[in-house]
Amino acid sequence: MKKINVGLIGFGNVGVGVIKILRERKALLIEKIGIDIAVKKVCDQDITSKRNVSLDKDLLTRDAKEVINDPKIDILVELIGGIHPAKELILEALRKGKNVVTANKALLALHGQELFAEASDRSKNIYFEASVGAGIPIIKSLREGLVANRFNSIFGIVNGTSNYILSSMSRNNCSFEEALKEAKAKGFAEKDPTLDIEGMDSAHKLILLTYLTFGKFINLKEVFVEGISRISSADVNYAKELGFEIKLLAIAKKEESDLEVRVHPTLVPEDHLLASVDGVFNAIYVSSDLAGNLLFYGPGAGQTSAASAVVSDLVDLTQDIKAGFFRPTLNIVLDKTINKLRKIDDFESRYYIRFMALDEPGVLAKISGILAKYKISIASVTQKQRSKTQLVPIVMVIHEAREKELRLALNSINHLSAIKEKSVAIRMEEV
Amino acid sequence: MKKINVGLIGFGNVGVGVIKILRERKALLIEKIGIDIAVKKVCDQDITSKRNVSLDKDLLTRDAKEVINDPKIDILVELIGGIHPAKELILEALRKGKNVVTANKALLALHGQELFAEASDRSKNIYFEASVGAGIPIIKSLREGLVANRFNSIFGIVNGTSNYILSSMSRNNCSFEEALKEAKAKGFAEKDPTLDIEGMDSAHKLILLTYLTFGKFINLKEVFVEGISRISSADVNYAKELGFEIKLLAIAKKEESDLEVRVHPTLVPEDHLLASVDGVFNAIYVSSDLAGNLLFYGPGAGQTSAASAVVSDLVDLTQDIKAGFFRPTLNIVLDKTINKLRKIDDFESRYYIRFMALDEPGVLAKISGILAKYKISIASVTQKQRSKTQLVPIVMVIHEAREKELRLALNSINHLSAIKEKSVAIRMEEV
Repeated sequence: MKKINVGLIGFGNVGVGVIKILRERKALLIEKIGIDIAVKKVCDQDITSKRNVSLDKDLLTRDAKEVINDPKIDILVELIGGIHPAKELILEALRKGKNVVTANKALLALHGQELFAEASDRSKNIYFEASVGAGIPIIKSLREGLVANRFNSIFGIVNGTSNYILSSMSRNNCSFEEALKEAKAKGFAEKDPTLDIEGMDSAHKLILLTYLTFGKFINLKEVFVEGISRISSADVNYAKELGFEIKLLAIAKKEESDLEVRVHPTLVPEDHLLASVDGVFNAIYVSSDLAGNLLFYGPGAGQTSAASAVVSDLVDLTQDIKAGFFRPTLNIVLDKTINKLRKIDDFESRYYIRFMALDEPGVLAKISGILAKYKISIASVTQKQRSKTQLVPIVMVIHEAREKELRLALNSINHLSAIKEKSVAIRMEEV
Repeated sequence: MKKINVGLIGFGNVGVGVIKILRERKALLIEKIGIDIAVKKVCDQDITSKRNVSLDKDLLTRDAKEVINDPKIDILVELIGGIHPAKELILEALRKGKNVVTANKALLALHGQELFAEASDRSKNIYFEASVGAGIPIIKSLREGLVANRFNSIFGIVNGTSNYILSSMSRNNCSFEEALKEAKAKGFAEKDPTLDIEGMDSAHKLILLTYLTFGKFINLKEVFVEGISRISSADVNYAKELGFEIKLLAIAKKEESDLEVRVHPTLVPEDHLLASVDGVFNAIYVSSDLAGNLLFYGPGAGQTSAASAVVSDLVDLTQDIKAGFFRPTLNIVLDKTINKLRKIDDFESRYYIRFMALDEPGVLAKISGILAKYKISIASVTQKQRSKTQLVPIVMVIHEAREKELRLALNSINHLSAIKEKSVAIRMEEV
């Protein structure tokens, strides 16, 4: 029987999951693919901590070179995360003739072009199913299952931490801070949750999804990113009253010949499947021209879930190696109907807006007057309370407006004497 | 450039879609896979009707042998549906050294074992992504994306016609007959909709899903099948009041070491994603042990959607042919933890039950007495109306009960003098 040797760098949570599967499911995998995927070396800074898997001590090393330089290792599994030294290790492994499996979305989002080019030059593959949506086979589906399709848009809930927080704010009527605290207590948010709640993790994944669907590698600087830390409990509740849930969406969308790539909190109609995606779950809603609108849903993180994706990549690689295939950018081609990336100023969207105003006659007239000046038309408006002493919220939904005009209008409104807090504006998507 | 020749039998709706994609996306597919998938022959009884695709007349034939016997044709695409002559054509194509792509769920459900065995003997492949969920890449996901997983259960809304009818009954508060009429008018139900509404089409697809997840080929006779034609508007509404939607589910589920395989209307909690699957859409909810609970959702029928799946199979086949792979039962292995198929009598489920009774004292006592005798316990009960002259509905939810006891109890209750109509019982699933 053919044996393919794997070297793993990064023996953390997911790494342990991968080793467990390769050991405990060895017979199953051999029965399925007729190839023995053998663990030849496991590298980590920490090789003494007890892990929930038994592993021959001889396989453990602190020295990544022992993996990279071992000519008998066919595949490097990179699970250390971060940019350095992950990038250098992957490049070196490719140069040494190894194929690569990684779950490192940040690295691929920032340096994917260079890494895929190196793989291509060396006739090697980089597979990365675990980098978006963990065990949800979204990358395989986009590349292979939907191979004949062109894509119109992709809307993803791809960050479990943010979705957990927004879900609990909606379900338990609590503040962002309370929800974040709960998420931390349950292990769904990191000590420093900035990358997750400010949308950067979603942006990394969106860059990969955009590459897979439109064939364009977007620079992170060109992605519009807005996180959820300014979403208030009041907004979650008002959105609900209007029939919407607030979700952090990663969006890549063709508008005529422009491509929009953006991450931001979004009002999603409550009867849309994306509105029902609860807790740490992820979901990717894909609009394709032949197969129609599809949803892929599942846990977006977790040891076994991510490891399941890594092992499916390993299995695919064994088949590629057996066949002599190399296809690091498998089925990814540029959508030539795309002319340019749309600038943020030119985004058009409906908006939910909350003004905090003094309850005095003429306020609404002033607000509407400014909006009219910028040709922004109002779909609905409600003053939520009455109070002689306190600020009252005015909740408005506006029809499609260009980002630039909306910003100018809001700026002008925020300077009105009756407006005492910065107005809140959240995008709405038809999906 | 390598060229792979395709012969198509069945130039109907999906066939036209396949030809359109292969012609209009030729450049895209070549850019992706570096292989020219060429249409060499198209066979149909009717070769004169005008279709929405231009095709060289020389390619058209009424004689299937011209496809089967052409040694230059590498792949047969079978899209005529039905058992005969589809089965004979596929067998003959395999014997002549061709690979096969088919969307024929009925054929595979009834004769898949024989067909896959023949393919295996001939070192050829049969791919069938379009047979379940049309363009949703569910088969690829189960076989490849989730290759390392074991499965606990699969719950599918896999018949668009039935789901359309149940959705409109729920949304528009109309009767089964009215909803069916509307579905026919919109082209979502066939003239004779029996296969769809009585659950047989779902059963065919369930046999394939069960094979993919548990590696067991179930005989159609062993699948418990109940359709939706006896679902009343009243039950849809009472279910809603209780917080449920009624869906026709195809279920394969491991219970300890037994496997249950069944198709029936089911009360699904309204906050579950499956409850939000509306209209002709399909969704397959998969519970796997590593990747967790996943949902795959999309249009379950339609020319371009099914054709998208057929073309993805063709692309995979070109790669197999290039590599010299044959894998007709790719990654399908028997789940050896399954001991036996559970008999219907032994199914256990919660139930929604509606009795139609005379509004007289003591009726509920009699009903509860009979249920108690069979050790069936009641979770809730509501008498929906009061009337001295008409039958009134009593709606009950019972805790887990064995099918056999429930049937005996209902039979006994139906014989009570106060019960004037056959009681309605619909299963509930936790999902």
